Amino acid sequence: MIKKNKSKIKVIPLGGLGEIGKNITAIEYADEIIVIDCGLAFPDTEMYGIDLVIPDITYLLNNSEKVKGFVLTHGHEDHIGALPYILKQLNVPVYGTKLTLGLVKSKLEEHNMLSDCTLVEVKPREEVKTENFRVEFIRTCHSISDACALAIHTPEGIIVHTGDFKIDYTPIDGELIDLQRFSRFVKQKVLLLMADSTNVERPGYTVSEKIIGENLTRIFGTAKGRVIVASFASNINRVQQIINSSLSYGRKIAFSGRSMEKISNIAIELGYMHLPEDQLISVDDINKYPSDKVTIITTGSQGEPMAALSRIAYSSHKKITIEKGDLIIISASPIPGNQRLISKVIDELFKKGAEVIYNALEEVHVSGHACQEELKIMHTLVKPKFFMPVHGEYRHLKQHELLAKKLGMDSKNIFVLETGQVLELSRNSAKKSGTVTSGSIMVDGLGIGDVGNIVLRDRKHLSQDGILTVVVTIDKASSSIISGPEIITRGFVYVKESGNLLNEATALVKSELDTCMEKKITEWSIIKSNIKRTLGIFLYNKTGRKPIILPIIMEI
Amino acid sequence: MIKKNKSKIKVIPLGGLGEIGKNITAIEYADEIIVIDCGLAFPDTEMYGIDLVIPDITYLLNNSEKVKGFVLTHGHEDHIGALPYILKQLNVPVYGTKLTLGLVKSKLEEHNMLSDCTLVEVKPREEVKTENFRVEFIRTCHSISDACALAIHTPEGIIVHTGDFKIDYTPIDGELIDLQRFSRFVKQKVLLLMADSTNVERPGYTVSEKIIGENLTRIFGTAKGRVIVASFASNINRVQQIINSSLSYGRKIAFSGRSMEKISNIAIELGYMHLPEDQLISVDDINKYPSDKVTIITTGSQGEPMAALSRIAYSSHKKITIEKGDLIIISASPIPGNQRLISKVIDELFKKGAEVIYNALEEVHVSGHACQEELKIMHTLVKPKFFMPVHGEYRHLKQHELLAKKLGMDSKNIFVLETGQVLELSRNSAKKSGTVTSGSIMVDGLGIGDVGNIVLRDRKHLSQDGILTVVVTIDKASSSIISGPEIITRGFVYVKESGNLLNEATALVKSELDTCMEKKITEWSIIKSNIKRTLGIFLYNKTGRKPIILPIIMEI
Repeated sequence: MIKKNKSKIKVIPLGGLGEIGKNITAIEYADEIIVIDCGLAFPDTEMYGIDLVIPDITYLLNNSEKVKGFVLTHGHEDHIGALPYILKQLNVPVYGTKLTLGLVKSKLEEHNMLSDCTLVEVKPREEVKTENFRVEFIRTCHSISDACALAIHTPEGIIVHTGDFKIDYTPIDGELIDLQRFSRFVKQKVLLLMADSTNVERPGYTVSEKIIGENLTRIFGTAKGRVIVASFASNINRVQQIINSSLSYGRKIAFSGRSMEKISNIAIELGYMHLPEDQLISVDDINKYPSDKVTIITTGSQGEPMAALSRIAYSSHKKITIEKGDLIIISASPIPGNQRLISKVIDELFKKGAEVIYNALEEVHVSGHACQEELKIMHTLVKPKFFMPVHGEYRHLKQHELLAKKLGMDSKNIFVLETGQVLELSRNSAKKSGTVTSGSIMVDGLGIGDVGNIVLRDRKHLSQDGILTVVVTIDKASSSIISGPEIITRGFVYVKESGNLLNEATALVKSELDTCMEKKITEWSIIKSNIKRTLGIFLYNKTGRKPIILPIIMEI
Repeated sequence: MIKKNKSKIKVIPLGGLGEIGKNITAIEYADEIIVIDCGLAFPDTEMYGIDLVIPDITYLLNNSEKVKGFVLTHGHEDHIGALPYILKQLNVPVYGTKLTLGLVKSKLEEHNMLSDCTLVEVKPREEVKTENFRVEFIRTCHSISDACALAIHTPEGIIVHTGDFKIDYTPIDGELIDLQRFSRFVKQKVLLLMADSTNVERPGYTVSEKIIGENLTRIFGTAKGRVIVASFASNINRVQQIINSSLSYGRKIAFSGRSMEKISNIAIELGYMHLPEDQLISVDDINKYPSDKVTIITTGSQGEPMAALSRIAYSSHKKITIEKGDLIIISASPIPGNQRLISKVIDELFKKGAEVIYNALEEVHVSGHACQEELKIMHTLVKPKFFMPVHGEYRHLKQHELLAKKLGMDSKNIFVLETGQVLELSRNSAKKSGTVTSGSIMVDGLGIGDVGNIVLRDRKHLSQDGILTVVVTIDKASSSIISGPEIITRGFVYVKESGNLLNEATALVKSELDTCMEKKITEWSIIKSNIKRTLGIFLYNKTGRKPIILPIIMEI
């Protein structure tokens, strides 16, 4: 062990900077590393066929003996979703609050690995201790219950990581953000603040969750038939408010959608959600009650094609069919990239005769992240020596830098990092100090990391212009064509509509092959590349498209 | 000719309802049809590889002798973009205002068909006359100059079609919406109003374009280096304001991006844009001037990968490289579906050291469509007997219906149609009356309509899991394998990372073939389907993926 490093702290974001998703940050001191969160990201539009993305933890694996555990801020997918994949490679204890661990537990059970993992529950204001670190959990508000910020006490000073937070003075569960605790840090001199940047572009304050509940109750009052509400399953306080609104009109509640059923179950079991047992009904039984006595709470608020709301909209849901008089409430706002999907679902619901309320029409959703005025409160309470904006795309981090500067912070004390960059801190100094291996590991079906850029490039190419396979069987000895050439296409052109195109293409390949045979070219790779070139030019001139051309020579 | 039909008007939307794009509506009376607009749509996310979408005009072709011409409301792509494709099939006169026709002309020139077409310029308050129709052009405001509503005088009454409009009391070009003309219709009793529904979800008023100009000038005042503004090329008034702000700080102007150069040229030539010749510089010359004396106006405000702004951001622009001190203004808002693209461009520009201003930070863009209060003005001025909301997704049309009802209209007089449905009108009645052929024709490269649902389904499938081709050469006479089986994949798995997977798959196919041979199965289709099934199950169990499997049997 190199002793001289002992006086430096390293903050190493392995994900979550310059992106929304896969939040994971290593804090290293001497021979110890603790890791904040372990999230996944959803694939971006260029990641064809990819199911989800997890962080590259090469750095942690290379230093595995140092890693003391994961400390979790809250139970959202972008903070816990990669755990089942990562714990398989690096099995260390996981610390978090009750609900957060409840959600982790359910994930590990699905991956059949719960018994191999160590989960340790921590309450707000409690601490996790290692040789060099004391990690204190501090209650915050967010769009999931039991969210915490972390104060990481190190020999060089305190690092405050806000997690995802907002300031809600009237939270549904009565659990206020622990502003007192944040304010007491001023005396202890916080070395580094790492704060949520998601909503830094938005002026003002985030509306209280309570307002949404009042709006929901008012809207429920107008409903003549069933009410079907789509929301995020993990937004337990929102679901609680939907339950409350329903109960106040004597409506029974049914949950629909796998994650809605699962998370509600966990939340009820752990005491985070309250629903009298006799008010909960199965989706199978909704038709046993009058329409105006039923509420269905469902997944699919993002228009996901396989989720319950989409299936309801497109009449492919086995148990729920839209009836005239149904009122649908989409209690969520579209995540960028999902607008078109959710728009189509809304249109479809209207066409089926339902009334649909969504955020453009009524305030039925509120964000879980702090807007500018809330961020100012956090900065002002904590008053850190150094600041590092986290949890945001690069422009959010830059805007957060600007906000800190406007509050009087010296720009040389603000560090906008990218994933993989290292911030090195001592009690008096901070500087960017190199980079470590980091990146995205793509999960596709059962494969983890077996789809890379070449496969993605091919998938993109295939999706644009399709593929054209040319097969020919050649007798190498006599240099003669035994069978073929045959052309088979997928995704290129509708064969019935393509007229003589493929016949002409086949003839062209035939003549190209004849030329090669005449010239006694026996190097298959040259023949293939000649076919590709000639055919490529022909097809582009005829169709303006460039399909993947796959020449296959069968040799006998 | 069937005389009894003479007393009915048919309004037939062939596009533009239940979608944003490809606006085209036929108005039929007796033996005459006039067609309002002829737009294209941009492909939605499921239309893999498609360049653009044009309306299916089978109905017009089947009634081609009746069609008297196209009357254009304004020069946006979703109102004129399909003309080059449609006029090739149905060459009738095209009527529109000067700028609109200037843009059409440029399109037809590109398609090398200008000399074959008849373009007839119409001024606001002028009319186009046929035997049964008088089509009056009425000036409106929109995000392109020279936009008009249409009042179509028929023997049964007046149809008012607003086109795309907003009410701007202080438009940049001084050309006010002709509210007086709209208000005079009350005496003449308007039979049907067809009104723009795009912004019906938004309460209040659309801000005047002038405010954007004031904001731009203020922001320009803070710039220390070059200013690069991305906007819609067709938003001529916006570009004019960017020019004005630039000139007020002594900046020269360079245009970048094909459509920006082209449309500015047309607008300047026709007198819709004003820029002293000595203030216009070429992009080649920007480095000859001090940074703070240069403005570049560019395309790419939607993050389109091939447009100038993206190329600037990703350092692939040949002539423009981001310098420290550059101020980028994105004077546009993201069209749904483009958010992620534009976000990435903004992030990239920040990373390169530029400052970026976009609509989330400053009011640098305003919509061209009427919000609720403006729509109320239009409804109240025109006071139609019947109402048909147009130009919007289905939910917009439904919301517009609601707005009309709130203004006191009887719901039985409001008709929410879908593309292809027919509204039949007489002076006293209106009813939905059947449907005609309508739909989307996809343009991919040079192909028009040769890509259909099967090809798209294959492209989608290919993009998700790729393709696996299995080739084998078989001697039919002896029922023996001469060569192969060989497996080649694209977009399925990175071969180097796939370990023994493809070898195992090949062995599996071999044994499946052997079984077939033993059983003397000589029906290729059965052998192929056996291979597909066996291999499909194997691959799914191993990888969780379902690539397209393409078995090819070469017979000798």
